[in-house]
Amino acid sequence: MNTPIVLAYSGGLDTSFCIPYLKETYGAEVHAVMADTLGLDDGEISRLREKALAYGAAHFECLPSFQGMYDRILGYLIKGNVLRDRTYPLSVGAERFIQAEQVAHYARTIGSNRIAHGSTGAGNDQVRFDIALYALIPGVEIITPIRDGGFSRAYTTQFLRERGFEVADKTTQYSINDGIWGTTIGGKETTTATTALPFEAYPHLTHPSGFQEEPEEVTIRFESGLPVAINNIEMKPFDLLKSIQKLGRKHGVGRGMHLGDTILGSKGRIGFEAPVAQILYFAHREIEKLVLTKWQRQFKDQMADWYGMLLHEGQFYDPVMRDLEAFFDSTQQRVTGDVNIFIGHGVLHHLGTHAPYSLMRADIATYGEDANGWTGQEARAFSKLAGITSKLANFNKS
Amino acid sequence: MNTPIVLAYSGGLDTSFCIPYLKETYGAEVHAVMADTLGLDDGEISRLREKALAYGAAHFECLPSFQGMYDRILGYLIKGNVLRDRTYPLSVGAERFIQAEQVAHYARTIGSNRIAHGSTGAGNDQVRFDIALYALIPGVEIITPIRDGGFSRAYTTQFLRERGFEVADKTTQYSINDGIWGTTIGGKETTTATTALPFEAYPHLTHPSGFQEEPEEVTIRFESGLPVAINNIEMKPFDLLKSIQKLGRKHGVGRGMHLGDTILGSKGRIGFEAPVAQILYFAHREIEKLVLTKWQRQFKDQMADWYGMLLHEGQFYDPVMRDLEAFFDSTQQRVTGDVNIFIGHGVLHHLGTHAPYSLMRADIATYGEDANGWTGQEARAFSKLAGITSKLANFNKS
Amino acid sequence: MNTPIVLAYSGGLDTSFCIPYLKETYGAEVHAVMADTLGLDDGEISRLREKALAYGAAHFECLPSFQGMYDRILGYLIKGNVLRDRTYPLSVGAERFIQAEQVAHYARTIGSNRIAHGSTGAGNDQVRFDIALYALIPGVEIITPIRDGGFSRAYTTQFLRERGFEVADKTTQYSINDGIWGTTIGGKETTTATTALPFEAYPHLTHPSGFQEEPEEVTIRFESGLPVAINNIEMKPFDLLKSIQKLGRKHGVGRGMHLGDTILGSKGRIGFEAPVAQILYFAHREIEKLVLTKWQRQFKDQMADWYGMLLHEGQFYDPVMRDLEAFFDSTQQRVTGDVNIFIGHGVLHHLGTHAPYSLMRADIATYGEDANGWTGQEARAFSKLAGITSKLANFNKS
Amino acid sequence: MNTPIVLAYSGGLDTSFCIPYLKETYGAEVHAVMADTLGLDDGEISRLREKALAYGAAHFECLPSFQGMYDRILGYLIKGNVLRDRTYPLSVGAERFIQAEQVAHYARTIGSNRIAHGSTGAGNDQVRFDIALYALIPGVEIITPIRDGGFSRAYTTQFLRERGFEVADKTTQYSINDGIWGTTIGGKETTTATTALPFEAYPHLTHPSGFQEEPEEVTIRFESGLPVAINNIEMKPFDLLKSIQKLGRKHGVGRGMHLGDTILGSKGRIGFEAPVAQILYFAHREIEKLVLTKWQRQFKDQMADWYGMLLHEGQFYDPVMRDLEAFFDSTQQRVTGDVNIFIGHGVLHHLGTHAPYSLMRADIATYGEDANGWTGQEARAFSKLAGITSKLANFNKS
Repeated sequence: MNTPIVLAYSGGLDTSFCIPYLKETYGAEVHAVMADTLGLDDGEISRLREKALAYGAAHFECLPSFQGMYDRILGYLIKGNVLRDRTYPLSVGAERFIQAEQVAHYARTIGSNRIAHGSTGAGNDQVRFDIALYALIPGVEIITPIRDGGFSRAYTTQFLRERGFEVADKTTQYSINDGIWGTTIGGKETTTATTALPFEAYPHLTHPSGFQEEPEEVTIRFESGLPVAINNIEMKPFDLLKSIQKLGRKHGVGRGMHLGDTILGSKGRIGFEAPVAQILYFAHREIEKLVLTKWQRQFKDQMADWYGMLLHEGQFYDPVMRDLEAFFDSTQQRVTGDVNIFIGHGVLHHLGTHAPYSLMRADIATYGEDANGWTGQEARAFSKLAGITSKLANFNKS
Repeated sequence: MNTPIVLAYSGGLDTSFCIPYLKETYGAEVHAVMADTLGLDDGEISRLREKALAYGAAHFECLPSFQGMYDRILGYLIKGNVLRDRTYPLSVGAERFIQAEQVAHYARTIGSNRIAHGSTGAGNDQVRFDIALYALIPGVEIITPIRDGGFSRAYTTQFLRERGFEVADKTTQYSINDGIWGTTIGGKETTTATTALPFEAYPHLTHPSGFQEEPEEVTIRFESGLPVAINNIEMKPFDLLKSIQKLGRKHGVGRGMHLGDTILGSKGRIGFEAPVAQILYFAHREIEKLVLTKWQRQFKDQMADWYGMLLHEGQFYDPVMRDLEAFFDSTQQRVTGDVNIFIGHGVLHHLGTHAPYSLMRADIATYGEDANGWTGQEARAFSKLAGITSKLANFNKS
Repeated sequence: MNTPIVLAYSGGLDTSFCIPYLKETYGAEVHAVMADTLGLDDGEISRLREKALAYGAAHFECLPSFQGMYDRILGYLIKGNVLRDRTYPLSVGAERFIQAEQVAHYARTIGSNRIAHGSTGAGNDQVRFDIALYALIPGVEIITPIRDGGFSRAYTTQFLRERGFEVADKTTQYSINDGIWGTTIGGKETTTATTALPFEAYPHLTHPSGFQEEPEEVTIRFESGLPVAINNIEMKPFDLLKSIQKLGRKHGVGRGMHLGDTILGSKGRIGFEAPVAQILYFAHREIEKLVLTKWQRQFKDQMADWYGMLLHEGQFYDPVMRDLEAFFDSTQQRVTGDVNIFIGHGVLHHLGTHAPYSLMRADIATYGEDANGWTGQEARAFSKLAGITSKLANFNKS
Repeated sequence: MNTPIVLAYSGGLDTSFCIPYLKETYGAEVHAVMADTLGLDDGEISRLREKALAYGAAHFECLPSFQGMYDRILGYLIKGNVLRDRTYPLSVGAERFIQAEQVAHYARTIGSNRIAHGSTGAGNDQVRFDIALYALIPGVEIITPIRDGGFSRAYTTQFLRERGFEVADKTTQYSINDGIWGTTIGGKETTTATTALPFEAYPHLTHPSGFQEEPEEVTIRFESGLPVAINNIEMKPFDLLKSIQKLGRKHGVGRGMHLGDTILGSKGRIGFEAPVAQILYFAHREIEKLVLTKWQRQFKDQMADWYGMLLHEGQFYDPVMRDLEAFFDSTQQRVTGDVNIFIGHGVLHHLGTHAPYSLMRADIATYGEDANGWTGQEARAFSKLAGITSKLANFNKS
C-alpha cells in the first residue's frame, strides 16, 4: 500500500505544482492541508478547496490556526518585544511552526508519516519546516520536490501547462507575503544591498509624503503583558490585531527594510510592513518601563534577543524556548494598564501610561523632606560607596 | 591657607549661586571652570566669563571639550548604537564625565583637591560627578552646597537677591538641557507617568502635523564605524554632528519620551530630542548588518546594553568600560561604506548601502547551480542535522 | 507608648550586647527572634532562650527556618548550580533573607515596625538585612547599634562587663560561621590577599595529607532538579543535606578560598568549607548535561551568574529573581535520574548517570548505517553550510 | 595535469590509509603535512617521515606548530579561563585549526587547492577542519575518504593489508588522544552515559587512592594574563606548560569526564586529563579576582562561555572571535603577579597572591575611622538607596 502524502498547501504556484508532481512521482494520494492564520472566510476557503481538488488532491483540509499561533508564538513576541537584529519582528517565520503542527496533526489522524512542503533550497522556511517535522513526527519522511529537484519557476510552470493547468505569466514585480504579523516584500532590489525598494512596492502603506489622515490618540490596554482593549473596547486577539493593523496602515506606521543573516549563513534582504508589531511593541515597552524593575527590563531584553534568534533559526522546539517563555510569563504578571499613544503621519509618540503596579511612586521615592524619600547626605553617601571600585581601579594604575 | 575651590560651572542659576555661597561659607577663592561641549563662540564665552566674575569668581576658565567627548564617549555610543533601555541615547549623561575631567585637569594645574558642583540630591548627575571625581582626584573633597543644604530654588533665589544679584522669576514652564547629542525636556508632566508632555514643549522639532519640508535622500559615509562624510562631503566630527542635527530637526526626526530607572533606584521621566543619535544609529546599524557576522551583531548589541547601563550609572571609570571599548573597536574595523537613507516627515527609511566588506556576495553564497553556492540536497542535509537536538528533545517526552 | 524593638538574634556577642544597649538607649522592650536554619535541638534552643532572657529580652522566639530557606533559596541555588564568581556557593548570604523574613513575620504579629540587627558597617550582611527589611515592612525603622555607633569589640565587651555580664576573652584566632550550606572562616590572613589561611583553620575538613577513609561510590537521585535520595534511600531535604555534608567532610571535599567583591565595592576574602554545594552541584550538572539541550545549559549557566550576583548583593526581593526562578523551574522538569559519583581523598569523579529523559540516544543520533542517524554526505553538507559565514568573512578581507 | 592532494597527516591508521587510497582513487600525488603541536624530536619526526613515504606519500612535511597554537588559541583560553559547559577545557579542538592553517599554508606554497583529511562523519573534527579550510583556501576541494566512503576500521585495515602494509590488530581498549592542552580517553564506556570509565583507562594520572607524592607549594607568575614563570624561574610557554603538566600528573590533578553536545546535535562523552588547563585556570582566576573589578570578571566569564562554544563548534574564523580576543586582551593588562598554590593528593588550594595592581587596598577601602574608608552612617545610607527598587516593587503588590 502506498501511504498518502500530506502536503503543506498554500494555494500558490509552488504547492499547486506539488500536487500533480507528487501524485505522478510517488503514485500516492496527496492530501492538501492549510493552516489558516489569516481568518479566511468561507468563500476563500471554498476557492482554495476547489483549486486543490482541481490539481488532483485527494483531500483538502483548512484548519483554523490564528489562535494557536497567537497563544504559542505571537503572544510571546509581544511579551518579549522580540525583534530579529533589533529591526525585524519575525513577520513570517512564526507561521511556519504552526503550519507544520497542523500538517503533523492531520498526518496523525490519517496515519501517515509522509509530509511534503514546497520550499526551495535557498531560504529559511525549509529549515523551519524540516526541524518542526522531525520534532513532531517520529520517522517522518520529508518530501520537498522543488528543493530536491532544484526546479525553477519556468520548470514548474511548464510542467503544469503540459498537464493542462492554466498558469498565469508572472506579472507582478514583487513577491508579497501577507500575514497579520507582517507583510514581506521581495523584489529584484532586495537581492542586492545597494538598491532601494521603491515606496510603491509596499502594498499597504502610503508614501511618506502622502499622509492625509488626522493623527489620533489611542489607548491600548494590556493585561499581564497582552493587549486586551483599544480605547476601552475589549477585543479578542484576532480582532484587536486587525484593528491595530488598520490603524497602522492608515497612519503609515511600520514600514521597514531588513538585511540579516539567513539560517544557512548568507545575508538576505527583505522589505516589510509590520504595523501591528511596531505599535504593540512600542506601547508594551512603555508600560514595562513603568512597572518592571531595571533588572527585569535588562534581562528580558537580552533573553528576547536570543528568543528571536532561535525562533528565526527554526529552533522553536528546543525546550529552552519553553524555559524562556516561562521567564517571560513571570515578568508579565504586573504588566497591566492603559498606554496612551499618539499616532499620525508615520510617527508614534508616547503620551502617558496608567498602571496599577506603577513603580513611579512619589510617596515612596521622591527626594525632599518626605520621610519616605532620602536626604542629600544619604545620596552623597550612596555616591561615595558606588564609586569605591572606580577609585580603587584608578589609583593603582601604573 | 585656604585651598581654592574649583567649581564645575554652567552659567545657570544653581552654579551661579554656588560662587558667592562657597566664598562666604568656606572663605576660599572660587574658580569657575566650564567644559565647552557645544562649540561656544567668543561672545558667548565672554558673557559667561563676565557673569562668573560678577558673581565673585576669582577665575573663569572655559575648556574646549567637544572633541574629547567625541573621542572618549560619543564615538563609542555610535560604534555600539548604545541606548538606555533601547530607547534613550544617553543624551546628557555623557557630558558629565568630560566636565569632571576638565575640572579635575584644572584643579591639578592649581594644586587644589576641593571640587564643587551644583547637583541636587535627587538626580543622576550627582552620582556621575562624584564617582568621576573620586576616580580622578586622590583625596578629593567634594562640596555640593545645594545637595548638602537641601536648598530649594526659592532659597537660592532669595540668597542671591539679598546680595544684590538680579535673578529673573522662573518664567519658562519647561527645563531644557541642550547638547549636541540630545536635548532633554522636563516639566510638571514628566514628574508623572500619566500625563503627556505637549509637542510644543519640544524646542527644536515641529509638531508631527506640521511637516513642510520636502523629504531628502542623504548618504552618510562611515569609516571604521564612525561617520566621516555626508553626501560625499568630508567633515570633522563637530561639523558632521551639527549637520545631522540640522537635518533631523528639519525633518522632525528624533523626538522621544523616556521613562526609566535612576541610579538611585526610583523611576524618572524625560522628554528628549535626539536626532543626531537616532539618524546615526539608524544608518550605522544598517551598514553593520551588511558587513558584520551574525555573532558580531548579537554580541555587540548585548554588550552595548551593558555599556549603556554602566555609563548611565556613572561607572565610566570602571576599567571594564575600556575592555568593552576594545571589543567595539575590533568589531568596527570593516564598518566602512556609504549608507543611503530617506529622511522626511518624521520618518527614516533605508535605501541601500555600498560597502567594500559587504558579506552579501552573490558569487559566494547564492543558491543555484553556482559552484560557490550549495545544492538542495546540501540544504536538506543541513536542516536534518540542525534538527537533531529538537528531535532528541521531543521524542523522549513522557 | 514605646513600640517594642524586634531584634534579629543569633546568641553571639554582638546581638547579646544589643539587648541591654537597646533597652537603655530606647527604653523599649526588646524581643529576640532567631531563625533556626540549623535544626537546633530543644536543649540548644533552651540555652539560647535563657541567654537572651538573662540579657534582658522581654521575649525570645526561635522559628524553624530550614525548610523555608531550602524552598525559597537553596533549592534554586541547586537548580542553577549558582556560584559567586564561579567559586563560592553563597554559603552565608542565603540565610540573611530568611532571618529578615522571620523577624518581619514576628514584628507583624506584635504590631511593631522597629527592627534591630547586629551588623557592623563593614560587610555585606547589613545591606542584605536592610534591603530585606525595607521590602518587607512598610515604614520600617531599622536600628543597628554597632554600625551606627561604630562600636568595637572592646567597647561592647566593656559595656557588658560594666553591667555584670560575663564576657569571655576572645580565645579563638578564627571567626567561624557555620551553616548547612557552608562554613566560612575569617582570620588575620584573610584580611590580606597574600597570606595563606592554614589548613588547620578549617574546622571540619582534614588536611589533604591526612585522608584515611576508603573512597566510596555514591548515587544521588534527582527529581525535577532537586536531590531526593542517596543510595536509593529517600530523604527529606534537611536529612539529605546533612548526609551529604557528612559524606563531604569525611572525604575532604569542599574546601575553598574566595576573594571577591563586597556589595560596598571593596574586595573581601574568606575561607570556606562547602561540601554540600560542591557535591550536589557536581552531580546535578552531570545529569543536566545529559538531559538538557545545549541552549538550556548555556542560558541557565549565564542566568545563574546573574542570580548569584543579585542574591549576593541583597537584591533577593527584586521581582526579577522570581522571573529567573520561573526560568530555572522550567528547565528542571526533566532533570530526573540517578547520578553515580566517586568520592574519596578530596576528589569527586563522575561515574555514570541513569536518566529517563536522557538525550544520549543511540537509536536516534548515532552515525552509521542506522536509518535514524545521518550519512557522511549529510555531515559534509552540514559542515559546508556551517562554514558559509566564515568563508564570506574571510574572503572579503582587504 | 593532476593537482597534488595535501593530506593533513597524523601518522595514525586513518591518515596512513588515506595515502594509498587517495593515490589510487585520484591518481594524484599525496603530500603528507603534519602540524607538530607536541614538540616532537628529530627521531620521532624521522620515523613519521619514513612511515608516510613508505605508504606512498610524494612528500612529507612536519611544521612546528606549538607556538602558533599558543599565541592564537591557548593563550586566549587561559586569558578567558575558557571551558566547554564549565567542565572541559577544549583539549583537542584547539589543535584542528592550527593543523588546518599549516595544511593551507603548505598548499599555497605548492599551488594546490585539494585538501584531504581523515575525519569520519561522526564527530566534531570534520566540521572544524572543513570550516577552517573553506575560510582559508578559496575554491578549496575537500576530500575526506573515510567520511565519504563510510569506511569502517575493518575496511581500512583490510585495504592496507591487501596492499602489503602491516596493520597491527587493535589491541588497546581505549582510544587516547594526547596533547599538551589535554588528553582525551574514549572507550566502550563513553559510548553510553551510564557506565564508568575505569580509573585505569586514564594514561597519565594515578588512581585517587594511590597518591604517594608529598604536596608542594608552587608559585606561578603571570604577566598580562599569561604565565611566565614557575617558582621564580622564567620559562618559554612550551617549557612552562610541560612543567605544569608534569606537576599535575605527579599530584593527580586534572582528571575529568565530560558529556556534552557535539556540533552535529547529538550528545557525546569523553574522559580527559587536563592538568595544564586546570592548574593554570585555577591560578589565573585567583589573580583575576584580585586585580579585576566585579564587572570585568562578570562580563569576561560570560564572554568566555561564548568563546568556548564558538571555538568548540568550529567558528574560530568568524571575526567575532577576534573581537572577543580584543576584549580579553584589554582585561588582562593588569593581570600581573605571583599566585601561590598548594598542590597535592589530587587537590588544588589557593594560598595567596601578590599583585602590583591589587584592588584589595586597606588604605583606600577599609571600614573604620580611616578617612579613606566610609562610616557606618554612609553604609546605612547606601543600603537604604540600594533598597529603593525592592521597596517600590514590594509595596505595590496586589
